[in-house]
Amino acid sequence: MHDCHRAIGGWLKAAGATVTIDAAGNLRGFYAPESKGPRILMGSHLDTVPDAGAFDGVLGVILPVALLEALRGRRLPFGIEVVGFSEEEGVRFGTPFLGSRALVGTLGTKLLNLRDSNGISVRTAIRNFGLNPAKISSARLSKEALAYLEFHIEQGPVLESLGQPLGVPDAIVGQTRMEFRFLGHANHAGTTPMKLRHDALAGAAEWMVAVERAGHSQPDLVATVGRVEARPGASNVIAGEARVALDLRHKCDDVRFRATEMLVRQAQEIARRRGLSLERKELLNQPAVAMDAFLVDQVEMAIRKTGCLPHRMASGAGHDAMVLAGSVPAAMIFLRTPGGISHDPAESVKVEDVASAVECGLHLLDQLASCSEFQERIRRA
Amino acid sequence: MHDCHRAIGGWLKAAGATVTIDAAGNLRGFYAPESKGPRILMGSHLDTVPDAGAFDGVLGVILPVALLEALRGRRLPFGIEVVGFSEEEGVRFGTPFLGSRALVGTLGTKLLNLRDSNGISVRTAIRNFGLNPAKISSARLSKEALAYLEFHIEQGPVLESLGQPLGVPDAIVGQTRMEFRFLGHANHAGTTPMKLRHDALAGAAEWMVAVERAGHSQPDLVATVGRVEARPGASNVIAGEARVALDLRHKCDDVRFRATEMLVRQAQEIARRRGLSLERKELLNQPAVAMDAFLVDQVEMAIRKTGCLPHRMASGAGHDAMVLAGSVPAAMIFLRTPGGISHDPAESVKVEDVASAVECGLHLLDQLASCSEFQERIRRA
Repeated sequence: MHDCHRAIGGWLKAAGATVTIDAAGNLRGFYAPESKGPRILMGSHLDTVPDAGAFDGVLGVILPVALLEALRGRRLPFGIEVVGFSEEEGVRFGTPFLGSRALVGTLGTKLLNLRDSNGISVRTAIRNFGLNPAKISSARLSKEALAYLEFHIEQGPVLESLGQPLGVPDAIVGQTRMEFRFLGHANHAGTTPMKLRHDALAGAAEWMVAVERAGHSQPDLVATVGRVEARPGASNVIAGEARVALDLRHKCDDVRFRATEMLVRQAQEIARRRGLSLERKELLNQPAVAMDAFLVDQVEMAIRKTGCLPHRMASGAGHDAMVLAGSVPAAMIFLRTPGGISHDPAESVKVEDVASAVECGLHLLDQLASCSEFQERIRRA
Repeated sequence: MHDCHRAIGGWLKAAGATVTIDAAGNLRGFYAPESKGPRILMGSHLDTVPDAGAFDGVLGVILPVALLEALRGRRLPFGIEVVGFSEEEGVRFGTPFLGSRALVGTLGTKLLNLRDSNGISVRTAIRNFGLNPAKISSARLSKEALAYLEFHIEQGPVLESLGQPLGVPDAIVGQTRMEFRFLGHANHAGTTPMKLRHDALAGAAEWMVAVERAGHSQPDLVATVGRVEARPGASNVIAGEARVALDLRHKCDDVRFRATEMLVRQAQEIARRRGLSLERKELLNQPAVAMDAFLVDQVEMAIRKTGCLPHRMASGAGHDAMVLAGSVPAAMIFLRTPGGISHDPAESVKVEDVASAVECGLHLLDQLASCSEFQERIRRA
């Protein structure tokens, strides 16, 4: 990460930015007439997952660097602060968004005490990196921040399926994760007639079909069972227990809650009819986060100016923008992801889509520089 | 097993039998006027599974001991050879019925070379037990064997559900074991809309529902999925692969083949419709084995004489009788198994059901001793 900071920091300096590393290990490059003043934050994360591709996160840091380079020293009525966030994925400490949480003031004692698999805390890791964890509060977002803009690969197949290079999320979906346990009776698969069975896995399978049907029942809802385990799990033994993981997401929390409730009722009904018992556990209930309507409109306009059709969509994955949106108006620009493939060495982007994204970014900065609503924001900042 | 042979061998001797251990480690006790001559074999296996109950197998050896004791030295027109088979379960060498295969001449070089998890072959294990593997052929069934009769716990819930102590299998079911692999595309559970998915587990779940439906579609058919595995198996990743184990049994091979073919077609249709690919592998295709019709009628008659209703059924599990039936007319008598629980320390039998089984066995021996058809068999032997 030191090498990464050095490389990107060098490009930022060459483009005219002042570069620092904040106490949470975020790379920050400020491009402005002065060292203070109203600013737009642009960035994404520098970390990624093991065995990852080359674009998830870092493309959203490099793109603003390209924008600064394209400005060739031209100054706008606001500064541009490029941010390369640390620890977005949560790989090392099991909790995501550590870098962006520092900007909104929620990287507190509890998170600083998280430990990695070697027992090293976030606090110690920060110190080992050469930074001072006692100064986390200095990483806070400037009070003069006007907006946060994040370029990111879509990590899904939607833009490719539509033949569109760029998309604009109007929300980051809320997410429910639950575990359902169907409990029946393990029995001999040869000697137990069908009508005397209490087959936990057969009940789970019926419910898994209902989960998929629920996903299709509402526009933009996604409902997934990605993990199932039958116990004892032998081919000649009727399963006495089946554990099924549910992942359900939608940009409207109400739609998500109603779908979750319906699936709980269906699981209960299936269990009752089959003489099974049912246990369930909620593992995550994360609300949807809306992107800023004004910025979303501006992004849409900028995409149109590049000659592309701006596809409005929800982001099905979490992003730093989700954390920032609680403290500053935020928006994202998605780049088409060939095959929808991400978190994999085969992850890619098309060069011409990146060029469109740079062009879109320049239009966006020009729009904001000349837009009366945004000038009002600058005055208030 | 030496202790076991000593204990049961002692009871057999006390009841008037001549006791030997054959070269395959089977306990054999011959109760007859002479050391040769026509005989009925009665027995079951002495080995069991780890963490087992106290009745699976051994009850079918002890019951004939009780019959000899009840005869009190009275001789019948045929001898009775009590057999306590070795290695029926296949726990140690991964292949079942080693003891009974020796009686029908199919414990050959290939099986003698099987090795346990410590690398010890069947041949060496026989030698270590103090026996001579070169003499396996001497374990062969007498040419004067008239019948094989096996008492065994049902290991299923059917007799209990009918309130009947004893049952009579007319066949041991044939069995198909297969593994089906549904192959789709692993993708992000948040960013991949429902209609752009190729979810291998959703396809597998739809098929698992079809498997259960198939089981209900034909009397006495049982169709089970006891094991399923989704890969990569994370709650937030759409499964790119799902492996499903099928276990399908019926006493008519035609019914089993037709059901298997139908399920293969349904899996193909599900895969085709969902844009998945399908692989399948047959792991077992074991034909059904009919019990001897004359003996089944005789068992039924003997059960009636105990005041019980004889329930005709198929045996859903394999037994030594399945192996013996290829060489000698064979039949079984099932004892009610409380809760259908077997291969578990909670396995049990009711004392009064064991008393009924002993009574049934005595009626059966008397019937065979006085039956003209059986006397004809004795003359031919």
